[in-house]
Amino acid sequence: MAREVNFGKMLHGGDYNPEQWLHSPEILEKDIEYFKKAKINEVSLGIFSWAVLEPVEGEFHFEWMEKIIDRLYENGISTILATPTGARPRWMAQKYPEVLRVDASRHRNLYGERHNHCYTSPVYREKTRIMNTKLAEKFKDHPGVIAWHISNEYGGECHCPLCQAAFKNWLKDKYQTADKMNRAWATTFWSHRYNDFDQVDSPSPRGDSSLHGLNLDWKRFVTDQTVDFVKWEIQALRDAGSDKPTTINMMYDFQGLNYHKFADVVDFVSWDNYPQWHKKEEYLTAMDNGMQHDIMRSIQKKPFLLMENCPSATNWQSVSKLKKPGMLHAASMQAVAHGSDSILYFQLRQSQGSSEKFHGAVIDHYGKDDTRVFKEITEVGESLEKLQEVTGAKNPAQVAVVYDWENRWAMEDAQGPRNKGLFYKETVEKSYYAFRKQGLNVDMIDMEQDLDGYKVVAAPMLYMFREGFEEKVRKYVENGGTFILTYWSGIVDSTDLCFLEGTPHGLMDVMGLRSTEIDGLYDGEYNRGVPVRGNELCLTKTYTCNHLCELVKTSTAQPLMTYETDFYAGMPALTVNLFGKGKAYHVCADFEQGFYDEVYRKIAKEAGVKRVVAHIPEGVEVSVRRNQDTDYVFVQNFNRQPVEVKLPVEQYPVWLGKYDGTIDRFGTVVLKGKAGEKE
Amino acid sequence: MAREVNFGKMLHGGDYNPEQWLHSPEILEKDIEYFKKAKINEVSLGIFSWAVLEPVEGEFHFEWMEKIIDRLYENGISTILATPTGARPRWMAQKYPEVLRVDASRHRNLYGERHNHCYTSPVYREKTRIMNTKLAEKFKDHPGVIAWHISNEYGGECHCPLCQAAFKNWLKDKYQTADKMNRAWATTFWSHRYNDFDQVDSPSPRGDSSLHGLNLDWKRFVTDQTVDFVKWEIQALRDAGSDKPTTINMMYDFQGLNYHKFADVVDFVSWDNYPQWHKKEEYLTAMDNGMQHDIMRSIQKKPFLLMENCPSATNWQSVSKLKKPGMLHAASMQAVAHGSDSILYFQLRQSQGSSEKFHGAVIDHYGKDDTRVFKEITEVGESLEKLQEVTGAKNPAQVAVVYDWENRWAMEDAQGPRNKGLFYKETVEKSYYAFRKQGLNVDMIDMEQDLDGYKVVAAPMLYMFREGFEEKVRKYVENGGTFILTYWSGIVDSTDLCFLEGTPHGLMDVMGLRSTEIDGLYDGEYNRGVPVRGNELCLTKTYTCNHLCELVKTSTAQPLMTYETDFYAGMPALTVNLFGKGKAYHVCADFEQGFYDEVYRKIAKEAGVKRVVAHIPEGVEVSVRRNQDTDYVFVQNFNRQPVEVKLPVEQYPVWLGKYDGTIDRFGTVVLKGKAGEKE
Amino acid sequence: MAREVNFGKMLHGGDYNPEQWLHSPEILEKDIEYFKKAKINEVSLGIFSWAVLEPVEGEFHFEWMEKIIDRLYENGISTILATPTGARPRWMAQKYPEVLRVDASRHRNLYGERHNHCYTSPVYREKTRIMNTKLAEKFKDHPGVIAWHISNEYGGECHCPLCQAAFKNWLKDKYQTADKMNRAWATTFWSHRYNDFDQVDSPSPRGDSSLHGLNLDWKRFVTDQTVDFVKWEIQALRDAGSDKPTTINMMYDFQGLNYHKFADVVDFVSWDNYPQWHKKEEYLTAMDNGMQHDIMRSIQKKPFLLMENCPSATNWQSVSKLKKPGMLHAASMQAVAHGSDSILYFQLRQSQGSSEKFHGAVIDHYGKDDTRVFKEITEVGESLEKLQEVTGAKNPAQVAVVYDWENRWAMEDAQGPRNKGLFYKETVEKSYYAFRKQGLNVDMIDMEQDLDGYKVVAAPMLYMFREGFEEKVRKYVENGGTFILTYWSGIVDSTDLCFLEGTPHGLMDVMGLRSTEIDGLYDGEYNRGVPVRGNELCLTKTYTCNHLCELVKTSTAQPLMTYETDFYAGMPALTVNLFGKGKAYHVCADFEQGFYDEVYRKIAKEAGVKRVVAHIPEGVEVSVRRNQDTDYVFVQNFNRQPVEVKLPVEQYPVWLGKYDGTIDRFGTVVLKGKAGEKE
Repeated sequence: MAREVNFGKMLHGGDYNPEQWLHSPEILEKDIEYFKKAKINEVSLGIFSWAVLEPVEGEFHFEWMEKIIDRLYENGISTILATPTGARPRWMAQKYPEVLRVDASRHRNLYGERHNHCYTSPVYREKTRIMNTKLAEKFKDHPGVIAWHISNEYGGECHCPLCQAAFKNWLKDKYQTADKMNRAWATTFWSHRYNDFDQVDSPSPRGDSSLHGLNLDWKRFVTDQTVDFVKWEIQALRDAGSDKPTTINMMYDFQGLNYHKFADVVDFVSWDNYPQWHKKEEYLTAMDNGMQHDIMRSIQKKPFLLMENCPSATNWQSVSKLKKPGMLHAASMQAVAHGSDSILYFQLRQSQGSSEKFHGAVIDHYGKDDTRVFKEITEVGESLEKLQEVTGAKNPAQVAVVYDWENRWAMEDAQGPRNKGLFYKETVEKSYYAFRKQGLNVDMIDMEQDLDGYKVVAAPMLYMFREGFEEKVRKYVENGGTFILTYWSGIVDSTDLCFLEGTPHGLMDVMGLRSTEIDGLYDGEYNRGVPVRGNELCLTKTYTCNHLCELVKTSTAQPLMTYETDFYAGMPALTVNLFGKGKAYHVCADFEQGFYDEVYRKIAKEAGVKRVVAHIPEGVEVSVRRNQDTDYVFVQNFNRQPVEVKLPVEQYPVWLGKYDGTIDRFGTVVLKGKAGEKE
Repeated sequence: MAREVNFGKMLHGGDYNPEQWLHSPEILEKDIEYFKKAKINEVSLGIFSWAVLEPVEGEFHFEWMEKIIDRLYENGISTILATPTGARPRWMAQKYPEVLRVDASRHRNLYGERHNHCYTSPVYREKTRIMNTKLAEKFKDHPGVIAWHISNEYGGECHCPLCQAAFKNWLKDKYQTADKMNRAWATTFWSHRYNDFDQVDSPSPRGDSSLHGLNLDWKRFVTDQTVDFVKWEIQALRDAGSDKPTTINMMYDFQGLNYHKFADVVDFVSWDNYPQWHKKEEYLTAMDNGMQHDIMRSIQKKPFLLMENCPSATNWQSVSKLKKPGMLHAASMQAVAHGSDSILYFQLRQSQGSSEKFHGAVIDHYGKDDTRVFKEITEVGESLEKLQEVTGAKNPAQVAVVYDWENRWAMEDAQGPRNKGLFYKETVEKSYYAFRKQGLNVDMIDMEQDLDGYKVVAAPMLYMFREGFEEKVRKYVENGGTFILTYWSGIVDSTDLCFLEGTPHGLMDVMGLRSTEIDGLYDGEYNRGVPVRGNELCLTKTYTCNHLCELVKTSTAQPLMTYETDFYAGMPALTVNLFGKGKAYHVCADFEQGFYDEVYRKIAKEAGVKRVVAHIPEGVEVSVRRNQDTDYVFVQNFNRQPVEVKLPVEQYPVWLGKYDGTIDRFGTVVLKGKAGEKE
Repeated sequence: MAREVNFGKMLHGGDYNPEQWLHSPEILEKDIEYFKKAKINEVSLGIFSWAVLEPVEGEFHFEWMEKIIDRLYENGISTILATPTGARPRWMAQKYPEVLRVDASRHRNLYGERHNHCYTSPVYREKTRIMNTKLAEKFKDHPGVIAWHISNEYGGECHCPLCQAAFKNWLKDKYQTADKMNRAWATTFWSHRYNDFDQVDSPSPRGDSSLHGLNLDWKRFVTDQTVDFVKWEIQALRDAGSDKPTTINMMYDFQGLNYHKFADVVDFVSWDNYPQWHKKEEYLTAMDNGMQHDIMRSIQKKPFLLMENCPSATNWQSVSKLKKPGMLHAASMQAVAHGSDSILYFQLRQSQGSSEKFHGAVIDHYGKDDTRVFKEITEVGESLEKLQEVTGAKNPAQVAVVYDWENRWAMEDAQGPRNKGLFYKETVEKSYYAFRKQGLNVDMIDMEQDLDGYKVVAAPMLYMFREGFEEKVRKYVENGGTFILTYWSGIVDSTDLCFLEGTPHGLMDVMGLRSTEIDGLYDGEYNRGVPVRGNELCLTKTYTCNHLCELVKTSTAQPLMTYETDFYAGMPALTVNLFGKGKAYHVCADFEQGFYDEVYRKIAKEAGVKRVVAHIPEGVEVSVRRNQDTDYVFVQNFNRQPVEVKLPVEQYPVWLGKYDGTIDRFGTVVLKGKAGEKE
């Protein structure tokens, strides 16, 4: 596991590209003046600076960078220093075309854009090693440099001959023989059998595109190859003598890489967060956004950094809406509440040209500090100073939701019951929201993480059971855990090969049922779940379901709800089964949010889950950070008007923020008290 | 014409891929047990088996196949044996890249997917010849093998240099000189003249894409080259001494090949049918589906095989909906009613992996026979046994609709009055439905087939008049036939060159009018047809029309309806003309279904068409199969509730099914009586 | 400036391709008979004739063309002769592949379609020079030939190595050093710096696609390279001794070329006009269409030719709607009213085959003159004869709207406040319509043209201030002009580099304000502008705005309207500032048309703009052409019913058309009187 990292302060700052302004020293001086006004104590430096650091092959210029870091440090501002591999200089592509990516159609890119280099290329790796080594040698002992920001927003894939060869080796390592791979991928179908690994090609719209086992292993390979490249980058820094902590900045709902595979590679997680505030009601965006924070936090189950966010409007979304007054502060406090030890912006000073010139910034083209946005940023800075002691505090969770990248890859690639839309993410969100509305911290775990210690674990749409998962669940329930599974679960193994003899595989006894068929519903079609009279959860309402309805045959499970219509009217729609000391619930259909809210509330209560705030109005978020024996309870109002809420101020007195029985629109109140789970 | 084929039983079975389970002999034994339970008497074997039959070039393995065929035969199950050319093994693509297709952008495919080989490649042809020869040598005398299934779902095109050369030769054979081709294609437009055949390239998004004569001849070449390949496959079987009947499996509304060109190539037609039951009301789907059955049947005007259909939900449609109880049986009976001598499924046992692993099957991953679907399949098997004597019976038709592939190709490629949508298929359907709602069998013929013997022939949107067609119509009407033509007909000749001096070309006297202009209507725009007072069809209702309104100038024709609005208000919208001993009707606009229902009913009555059932409620289908002097009248209720219908049980007693004045939801009743056209 | 051109008659004719009918001499004779009947006095000959003129390399055939021109001339019909470079013969592509274009993905086209040759290719230039020289030598002295039609509808771009080299030279000429280019394009962003010009590649989806400075200069290069090619074509004609006037035919709203750059290259402007009449209400289409006429006219501020339009329905629009009776005449008169000295059609005789065979024509496939369309064309011919004295008359304008190609290129490429849609064209139209509804001629100028002499100049969404523009505006207002600017103006310089220190750049004092932020609104979102009590324009109504709301901070400007809602409620939405002797208005948001109608009417009145017709009903257009001291006032009713309108018949008596206090549906009345601006 990655080591503990604590910078001793809530970081406030962001991406800074002074190399764009070296011709205007007065601007660089102005920057420092404004940073201090806005309580900025950090900059992320060097992202995309390669062409300035090494303008000609082998000719290095670090002096400007050193001067900047020195000046910042003198003014109390720390630097997170980036390796510049997010974009390569033109000369490199010109001289060594192998550094350019090849797409799935097997066309090699021209030079352009960013994040577009082959991770396998020995040339690119060597150039990276030299650059990182020199950076580390230069700055490893600089007191202003507090961490390494490795490259930028890793992503994408390359299908060049070098990558094809690496992929073949990867497969050989995994399967040893072509026959084993043939069985795993079911290649006898359509005569796709491989005689040897040399016959393998990566998926392509011009070649193999629906051999799901191949697709899945290719995605895994892309993650592994990226992990390998990240390790390579870090090793160069370590070899040069730097032991400063490292991170990569991750992205919202990014499917290209399984971020869990980086848990042991970087010292801490960071991510870039660009929610579309004000598009829908803010409390809905907050919920969505909160889940992403928790996904990031759960990778290492410790604090992360919010590495980028926008001070006002972005320039790349379809509509660039201004953040309304107070929104920036509320969003910033939410990040901290969910585990962030920073609020960092893209970008500190707006670039004068090129593709992101209209992206919001701390200092815009106008160039002065008398703007609305600068004022709002300063308020965030002030709040972060007050929150200093929260740095390093964790977010204890009694419940978890399983959200697994590989499961999603496989399920969304498989041609199955509803190619028009399975809604995996939305379904996971329903479980997450149902817990969050109770004011519970939620861990978002993958199938490799432990279940022990949680009172309730929900595993929606777990199409794939990775090796060992069903055994983990069995033990968890046997030992008294409460487990919630849904339709379309336990269907395939880790190479997307269907389990035979009944599903959910290996858990039919734990769930007390077998899934027999699954019905796809057209858009607009629906069915309903009707409570069984006298059901043990005391459910009384009827709920609508869409998209997918599973038909199950129960053995020992008890139906709690049944379908209302269609030829499966009267068949179970929600069941519970007692197994060992625990309970296993099965949700048979894609129910509306209200179903999850009621059912999960009752399940959590029954499982002994404790809540800090008893009654939480709609639009209010409650999160807890815990430092040793102190709990910080963040209560945030994401409604567009003030809201009344009764807080347990006797146990947890108000520490920060304004509270008089009511919380302001977009207001945040932090309570502080002795750690522990209370009701 | 293809020879008569009668297997002496209604076939029940489908695609079977035991090569996927050779590692589990117990599964293969279980299969036979279940087949017998479900009254399965046929399997389609060897489709996509090439990689198992010839895993390495020149190394053949037929022993497993022989064992399977033997075991099936011992258990009373026949085999339709496939040539495996639907998918080639990887080694072949690796060693001989010329077998891989080149797309219209001139990029050669990588290995992958299926149905993707060059039909011209000498290497692919030679490998096919060797394989087919060996298969035939091995199995030609096996009593269990009853027919050859040539390849699978032919389709697609290749633009490789070999195909380009073949296309040039094809054109040279057709036109002899470049000048004749230039005239036929009107290449002087935009300076596109060819100096010689060597300058020809197939159509491409990167080159010629709107030279319609070229596009049309390319489509014809693709059909001819595919026909040539099918002949090549069959010849190898014949040369090896097999004279078993052959078929290819065709597809729903497939535009890539003119299936009529295969009428003399295969011994019988078969097709794969995957309607989206329950998406709209079932009786609408039944109507649509019925037309496809009749298109297939009309190619050879004799019984066909339903080669594939799905026992429950497919996995490749946008929404995979379960077939509701009774639907499989109703759809199966409809296929037989329209001329099928089989109900075959894709697939008998569900594959464990790859792209179709979730496609419905007789035996699913669960692997047992206590499923809902298995039970429904068994019921179909039982019904088919009862229907055995219907095998070989034809479907006599008094009326025909002209539906012509080449016409559709040309019309939909031409840039004309409504590029946003001409609705050819929908317009043909309106004519078909209008006849079917009267309980009439309908032949779906192309322009090369005979008109003689029909009482009414409808030819909707016959944009292209292929050579000789107008003369055929003239004689048909002269001799007393009733002919219905519509707007946008008789515009171009068979190379898409416009007829000069007035349209519908060659029929202006037969129709008694000339078309002068055609107006495109925007979506949502409409006009109306108003009956002329005292019109001879006694039409009294007003009908809406959309999309296209033709303006005609009558000579001898009489208007029956006129337009209601726009500057052509009062001009004819429907006319009739007496010509020789017959009558010719002209429909000027794209009218709603109700128009066709009323007008065709009155025209058919006037033309002396006889009906078996006088009053047919909505949602009920009536079809007749005739074996020598016996008629089998299938009456099916596709409504979601039982329906009352008065059947002529005195002339045709109930033979199969439940009838008490009412037919059940999805129920089928078969009457049996002396052949003949009754009213 | 281009020279004055006056053919002494209103031209009536169009594209004529007799080379398609050389095999039918009787058809060519028939053509002349029909032309004369329809008052056709011109043909456009030789467009796309290359393959007939030079069927084999170096073998020329002009005899057929000479014969045609002679016969036409004998019959009083003039010829505008085309150079045939709109489409090359196949032999040229086959022998010299370099003439084929390479697309942005770097794939070279195959032969096909038209308008698809590399403008840089020395081979293509040489072949063009030879062809044009021979054409000019042959026909320069022919009295029937009155002008040169250079190629056809120029457009498109080529990314071949020859063009890449030319682009590099173009950049070198512009920037001298890579460093200057780096600064101008802000290439330090994402490490995109160039070490030398050799590293430049044109934009590509596979390479650089969001380097906006590069994109913009590429578009300029494409225009310049096309201009250079046009000059090359013309020079060949001049070198061969022809001094006949030249033109190129431009296209509706075509963004691929900055047409203003051709102002000094051709002797007169012409364009091809294909409005979709009857899709929406005709008066809306007329307004839209009128703006395009005025854009074309304003390029040289003198009469132009309508080079192509359709006699009835086109064949390439999504729905080909017939022109209703009277529409052709009304549209023709509108073209003349806006400055056209011709009505020319595509096409005189309909081609028998290929892609435009169903495009409307004077003589259609039927081939006779007793058609509705032929009759309507003849009526146009008769009206043009009556209008002969209007030939050469100009359209004096008191107001102008700035509509700038380069501004549009830059703004729509920049990733900014609303990538989903900025609505530049629609916003310009709102200004244009607001002037036109007052019966005012409007000049549509670009930033390089003069502002002097206009009473009001509106400059909507002028994102880019090209060099010198702000100074021009400053002087214009100082000297008493009325200037209207809007949101999102003065943001970047001519290389898309953001202005620092406040916007609208250089005009903050003139406008009396600074723009601080801009808010993007989602589809369906809106705000409203509320009049400030006692505002000096006496505005009293509230208007809705969408898409973009700018927040401004006023210095000396006075708010006339303020926002109604959101956090910027009460902030200015419309302002006015007194500056020098003039006034400057600022529109802060994307208001509805009604806002522009009222505000512009009041501004124009205040600025002393005179109107000929005091009260103009909706759907009526008023335009003025002036010949020396005579004004021709065209009043047209584009409503679907007659309309009452009071015309100043005492000052301007009715000269042509029917007027009795009312004008017919689609009717045109022309008044004639002494030149001068009256109220």
